Amino acid sequence: MSGRTNVELGGITLLGNQQTKYPDDYAPEVLETFPNKHPENDYFVKFNAPEFTSLCPMTGQPDFATIYISYVPGERMVESKSLKLYLYSFRNHGDFHEDCMNIIMKDLIKLMDPKYIEVWGKFTPRGGISIDPYCNYGRKGTPWEQIAFDRLAHHDMYPEKVDNR
Amino acid sequence: MSGRTNVELGGITLLGNQQTKYPDDYAPEVLETFPNKHPENDYFVKFNAPEFTSLCPMTGQPDFATIYISYVPGERMVESKSLKLYLYSFRNHGDFHEDCMNIIMKDLIKLMDPKYIEVWGKFTPRGGISIDPYCNYGRKGTPWEQIAFDRLAHHDMYPEKVDNR
Amino acid sequence: MSGRTNVELGGITLLGNQQTKYPDDYAPEVLETFPNKHPENDYFVKFNAPEFTSLCPMTGQPDFATIYISYVPGERMVESKSLKLYLYSFRNHGDFHEDCMNIIMKDLIKLMDPKYIEVWGKFTPRGGISIDPYCNYGRKGTPWEQIAFDRLAHHDMYPEKVDNR
Amino acid sequence: MSGRTNVELGGITLLGNQQTKYPDDYAPEVLETFPNKHPENDYFVKFNAPEFTSLCPMTGQPDFATIYISYVPGERMVESKSLKLYLYSFRNHGDFHEDCMNIIMKDLIKLMDPKYIEVWGKFTPRGGISIDPYCNYGRKGTPWEQIAFDRLAHHDMYPEKVDNR
Amino acid sequence: MSGRTNVELGGITLLGNQQTKYPDDYAPEVLETFPNKHPENDYFVKFNAPEFTSLCPMTGQPDFATIYISYVPGERMVESKSLKLYLYSFRNHGDFHEDCMNIIMKDLIKLMDPKYIEVWGKFTPRGGISIDPYCNYGRKGTPWEQIAFDRLAHHDMYPEKVDNR
Amino acid sequence: MSGRTNVELGGITLLGNQQTKYPDDYAPEVLETFPNKHPENDYFVKFNAPEFTSLCPMTGQPDFATIYISYVPGERMVESKSLKLYLYSFRNHGDFHEDCMNIIMKDLIKLMDPKYIEVWGKFTPRGGISIDPYCNYGRKGTPWEQIAFDRLAHHDMYPEKVDNR
Amino acid sequence: MSGRTNVELGGITLLGNQQTKYPDDYAPEVLETFPNKHPENDYFVKFNAPEFTSLCPMTGQPDFATIYISYVPGERMVESKSLKLYLYSFRNHGDFHEDCMNIIMKDLIKLMDPKYIEVWGKFTPRGGISIDPYCNYGRKGTPWEQIAFDRLAHHDMYPEKVDNR
Amino acid sequence: MSGRTNVELGGITLLGNQQTKYPDDYAPEVLETFPNKHPENDYFVKFNAPEFTSLCPMTGQPDFATIYISYVPGERMVESKSLKLYLYSFRNHGDFHEDCMNIIMKDLIKLMDPKYIEVWGKFTPRGGISIDPYCNYGRKGTPWEQIAFDRLAHHDMYPEKVDNR
Amino acid sequence: MSGRTNVELGGITLLGNQQTKYPDDYAPEVLETFPNKHPENDYFVKFNAPEFTSLCPMTGQPDFATIYISYVPGERMVESKSLKLYLYSFRNHGDFHEDCMNIIMKDLIKLMDPKYIEVWGKFTPRGGISIDPYCNYGRKGTPWEQIAFDRLAHHDMYPEKVDNR
Amino acid sequence: MSGRTNVELGGITLLGNQQTKYPDDYAPEVLETFPNKHPENDYFVKFNAPEFTSLCPMTGQPDFATIYISYVPGERMVESKSLKLYLYSFRNHGDFHEDCMNIIMKDLIKLMDPKYIEVWGKFTPRGGISIDPYCNYGRKGTPWEQIAFDRLAHHDMYPEKVDNR
Ligand SMILES: [Ca+2]
Ligand SMILES: [Ca+2]
Ligand SMILES: [Ca+2]
Ligand SMILES: [Ca+2]
Ligand SMILES: [Ca+2]
Ligand SMILES: [Ca+2]
Ligand SMILES: [Ca+2]
Ligand SMILES: [Ca+2]
Ligand SMILES: [Ca+2]
Ligand SMILES: [Ca+2]
Ligand SMILES: [Ca+2]
Ligand SMILES: [Ca+2]
Ligand SMILES: [Ca+2]
Ligand SMILES: [Ca+2]
Ligand SMILES: [Ca+2]
Ligand SMILES: [Ca+2]
Repeated sequence: MSGRTNVELGGITLLGNQQTKYPDDYAPEVLETFPNKHPENDYFVKFNAPEFTSLCPMTGQPDFATIYISYVPGERMVESKSLKLYLYSFRNHGDFHEDCMNIIMKDLIKLMDPKYIEVWGKFTPRGGISIDPYCNYGRKGTPWEQIAFDRLAHHDMYPEKVDNR
Repeated sequence: MSGRTNVELGGITLLGNQQTKYPDDYAPEVLETFPNKHPENDYFVKFNAPEFTSLCPMTGQPDFATIYISYVPGERMVESKSLKLYLYSFRNHGDFHEDCMNIIMKDLIKLMDPKYIEVWGKFTPRGGISIDPYCNYGRKGTPWEQIAFDRLAHHDMYPEKVDNR
Repeated sequence: MSGRTNVELGGITLLGNQQTKYPDDYAPEVLETFPNKHPENDYFVKFNAPEFTSLCPMTGQPDFATIYISYVPGERMVESKSLKLYLYSFRNHGDFHEDCMNIIMKDLIKLMDPKYIEVWGKFTPRGGISIDPYCNYGRKGTPWEQIAFDRLAHHDMYPEKVDNR
Repeated sequence: MSGRTNVELGGITLLGNQQTKYPDDYAPEVLETFPNKHPENDYFVKFNAPEFTSLCPMTGQPDFATIYISYVPGERMVESKSLKLYLYSFRNHGDFHEDCMNIIMKDLIKLMDPKYIEVWGKFTPRGGISIDPYCNYGRKGTPWEQIAFDRLAHHDMYPEKVDNR
Repeated sequence: MSGRTNVELGGITLLGNQQTKYPDDYAPEVLETFPNKHPENDYFVKFNAPEFTSLCPMTGQPDFATIYISYVPGERMVESKSLKLYLYSFRNHGDFHEDCMNIIMKDLIKLMDPKYIEVWGKFTPRGGISIDPYCNYGRKGTPWEQIAFDRLAHHDMYPEKVDNR
Repeated sequence: MSGRTNVELGGITLLGNQQTKYPDDYAPEVLETFPNKHPENDYFVKFNAPEFTSLCPMTGQPDFATIYISYVPGERMVESKSLKLYLYSFRNHGDFHEDCMNIIMKDLIKLMDPKYIEVWGKFTPRGGISIDPYCNYGRKGTPWEQIAFDRLAHHDMYPEKVDNR
Repeated sequence: MSGRTNVELGGITLLGNQQTKYPDDYAPEVLETFPNKHPENDYFVKFNAPEFTSLCPMTGQPDFATIYISYVPGERMVESKSLKLYLYSFRNHGDFHEDCMNIIMKDLIKLMDPKYIEVWGKFTPRGGISIDPYCNYGRKGTPWEQIAFDRLAHHDMYPEKVDNR
Repeated sequence: MSGRTNVELGGITLLGNQQTKYPDDYAPEVLETFPNKHPENDYFVKFNAPEFTSLCPMTGQPDFATIYISYVPGERMVESKSLKLYLYSFRNHGDFHEDCMNIIMKDLIKLMDPKYIEVWGKFTPRGGISIDPYCNYGRKGTPWEQIAFDRLAHHDMYPEKVDNR
Repeated sequence: MSGRTNVELGGITLLGNQQTKYPDDYAPEVLETFPNKHPENDYFVKFNAPEFTSLCPMTGQPDFATIYISYVPGERMVESKSLKLYLYSFRNHGDFHEDCMNIIMKDLIKLMDPKYIEVWGKFTPRGGISIDPYCNYGRKGTPWEQIAFDRLAHHDMYPEKVDNR
Repeated sequence: MSGRTNVELGGITLLGNQQTKYPDDYAPEVLETFPNKHPENDYFVKFNAPEFTSLCPMTGQPDFATIYISYVPGERMVESKSLKLYLYSFRNHGDFHEDCMNIIMKDLIKLMDPKYIEVWGKFTPRGGISIDPYCNYGRKGTPWEQIAFDRLAHHDMYPEKVDNR
């Protein structure tokens, strides 16, 4: 079996570590990164996370969403098992849908300084209405700053059919 | 449980209020807002509302639609339970499909002065034909004015398959 | 244009009557029937009614469902426009999901004394859970009595996927 | 090219006849048959006919349906182009949905004396409700008489989702 | 019940008129309009018409299509029941698929002078091949003239899957 | 608004009670019932619950499932908001998938003594494999005892397509 | 790599033979078998063959179908590459849909004497109507004779939706 | 029945001609055209052809594809029955997938000198991989030359899900 | 966190063991079990395994399948991580599709002596044809012996649509 | 059978070669090309490869993906059977998802110097999250350099629904 050397994997502590501890509350500190081996060409990485759950800050009732995170890496990339634990840390955390998406994006920007990132949450309905927040970001002073605005300007022109069933 | 403070939630009276009163007729006055905590970056919020019903102004028969409302918040954001009550207020209100969508958009513009908003209704058929009105708006003097026109110009180039079943 | 004679259509007052009046509350009295022209062979007639709405008896909030009504006619058959008005009459009526389905079935049994009938409601979720009541009936002293029990015993062994979106 | 001989095809006049004349009104006389070459084993033949249209006997407005016809041949089988012309003959014919399905079944029974036949129509909605009649028949004095009743007794226990879009 | 006043509804004779007469042949004269109450903001209205049928001009056999009509209203808007009767008038009319779509578009342009309009027909197959014509138009001397060409230039880059079943 | 009287609703404390308290751990005691108003005819009630989450008893990682609960009521019926709180109580509870489904079924049997009940969980995958437990029960000494065994014997003969995406 | 020994594979000449020759016309002689290694327990093997094409015996035009072949092996099993060549041999062969399905079944019965077999063809439409023949067989004097009849009697009670697109 | 006059149909020999002869090999000479009656406005015509089959030039085994042909007519348009015969002529013709698509496009350009044309083939897999070639063309010296390149540059950014089942 | 005690989990060594070793070849010895805590009521457990791959015994090329394993536990149940490793052990193992399914079933019978078990593999196509073997088993001398035969006799009467895309 | 001459096929050794040897480890050397016969017009070729599997470099567990490769050929084109063998060579190779996609793209660029290429992998989930890397490339000094960046900038603005089932 070939591929990445140990050095290239250095810095990853959670993947393949059996004694995973799940955080009790919002825990951006669990996020880990590894180096981008293909910095010469920009490319996208998307995470599909259909098992997101948080709490309503006013009623305490659980909310559920599928979150799509898509980014263009800079020098470092987020390791997926640490991302899983980070998203898990919202499980007992209360915040509005719109706030959760913005917080996740900001934490990932701070963590890995990506060229571009977007976070899209699609929640289940409460009272017959569901909410889907979407935020994005492009690194200042690069073409991705304008691309971020262009992607926002053309966001979701074909909303998926939602019938609450 | 962490998240928004009471101050940040101030102004919301309906969410978590058990004695909800459902309005008898068109009631834009029930709409409430809360402050946008992420004003530094533009982002989208979409509401999926598949439980909309109004009355035909000529025959009195009920109409049904799924409404998709998507907006970029300015300083304030519409609270989702108040939006539910507002949409409910069309239940005994008679107006054409096209008029309902324009009225909803205008009420939400007046309420929260968003940077951008669009409202898309997809109605069930009468006499074998269904009607889907779509209107949008961008705040004057901002890039969203032009974006609104661009989104309108490229609206729905891939109409969904409709077979009335 | 051929087909049913006026006599065979006799008793229908709502179909093709422009001045339809929509009832204010639960109105089983609007239901009308016409004669079954094929009494020599049993057959099924199904109504698909995706535009059903009623009110929650405790909170007053609107409920929405798709209702499937399937029956084997006896001597008379329910006219579909009168059925539409009857279902409309639940629009401002408050009752539990389970009660609505049983009431609809009993009214239709009383109206047309069918050999067999079943009513299946599929509601939209409240608090993340949706409810689907199903009831049925076979005319006493006929093979349809046993068939009704058999259909109940084998009901819905393949529940449709529901993800609240 | 091998297959059926001319004798085995004898009796078919419409298939491959370019000067097809479309009947003005209900025309059971256009139906043609050809011999069943596999009488030693029972088997099913199904026709899917999604282009059926007739007229409402009361309002004259057009109705549309997909019709599924399924049968077990006896000595003769219905030729598909003649079936197409026959179904076309309802285009300017006014009758209730339930009547159309029974008439089609009876005409086909008379034509080819099948061991078993069933006809299922799925119509588009009028006033928010669609109607799906289903009738069937098994040849008297054969096991198919009981099978017909069994199939009726277990008909459509999983109604397809209908949302009028 | 509130909404449009009688004056705002003036000019509509077919909606709510029980004695609808269905035209025998191509009948653009049945089309009616009502005033656009929201002339200050451009918006789209789409009609989904899955029950279109015409005749083949060479063989006389019936053709079937789903037609999507989408337009941006100018001063007047087409009333949907009159549109239904107009589309019905093709039922006994013979023309090529491509011609029907162009004729419908031109009649609606003449009727209501829209800012923009497009007509897309999706027909069922003959001989294993189906045909989907699409035409559009933008009012000369307005931005919609260029938009019409842009929409045409980007038309249908993701053709739907068609397998003839 | 008509429907159930207060007496008929008696015993329900959670529905319409704004100060809902979410339980910290497995809490069968929150379950509430109301009387069955239609005891003379057996019928089914199904709950679709796509927002179920529990914890793995060995690793502590969260599990997610959609749960379908279907039952034939006896004298009393489970109230849906209390069911929601009960299912919520598994959120911080660790148990195997198979155990959770059996526990839910047994608690509901104890609560309302139904004539019949079944519980089907469909979990998301771990390590590329997902698990779907299904258990059921029929009241001893009634026809539902045999029906329960028959339904088990014919369970899920058409497994849904699962591709982990 | 383990698995079947050469002896257990004996008799297969086409699989892994590069110089495959495609037959010019109907060629049942290309079919090959291999021994069933699990004769002690009955089981099903299904072939999905969506690339079937033959010719119309009257017009010479090509027909297309998806064929599903399902069988319970006796002592020998049909090898899949030889089955592919056999089905290919209908490419220039003219026969009615119903005849093709019966011929395929009979050839496979003759080849491998299965305990049970069924063949279901789903053709694309001609003139707006598609045809789906289904035939089956159970070995005389075994339980599969009755099972074959039972499966026929319960065939296709839920016809798939067909809209010719 | 109205529509195109005989003169406007002149030049069509195959449509409505019963004695269709199917070509033995690649036969561009069967293609026929008719005049475009709407030359004043550009529009699209798409053919959906899911019944395409050719042969592998190296192994002789049959290949199958769905072909989508979309064009903007110039002065003349391809008649659909002649197109059917032309596509049929690949049935016994051996060529790579990529070559077939380019050949079809070039033949249609030569036939009718369209303003724009594109041909997209979606083949079934061999060895677990399927191939989808796409080529297009815009008439030199017209805006469609640039549009062709733009459509190519934005081709298929959302590849359909393919799982070989 | 509550649920199973350590004793009840005893015997499981792989779940939660980080240093998983993947077997080089067919390895039934990796399978592990845990005790069934609900032996008083029969119930089903299904595993969905869409990531199965083995090798063709004649050509060495990889095969892919989705495998569905469904069983009614006796005293012991198979642990899912050990099942994953077991299925993995076919990765470099060569056997026919039909043999793989039978082997998996027999290994699981030997491992846990279930009351009932069935294994259904759905493979991807080779040469345009895919193969789906299905085998099952009921414990001798129990009602599940007959149920196994009944389930086999009614297996897959509604084959899923397969189009190789 | 006509089409490519032997000279035009020269250089292909694997297609039609029965004694295929499957490589033990990552093997870019198996890739083969053939000449592009249509160099005068740019066009796209897409490969759909749903049977990709590699190993996790840290845990050794197998990963699975569907890979979509789309390119605009230059002078030479990759032969599909050699591509199959190349992708197979990752079967026992350990690398991160993101690295595999970049390596595949770079190998294909080196092999055939395409004008444009993109590689999109869609993996199955581990720990509830799936990863979809996408990379692309346009030949330096041609319009495809800018097109590559534009396609990247507009990548995947409509993420497919992923629910891990
Ligand atoms: Ca914390
Ligand atoms: Ca008011
Ligand atoms: Ca009343
Ligand atoms: Ca859904
Ligand atoms: Ca007549
Ligand atoms: Ca629908
Ligand atoms: Ca006229
Ligand atoms: Ca289709
Ligand atoms: Ca507790
Ligand atoms: Ca021969
Ligand atoms: Ca279809
Ligand atoms: Ca030639
Ligand atoms: Ca597929
Ligand atoms: Ca071993
Ligand atoms: Ca190597
Ligand atoms: Ca899925």
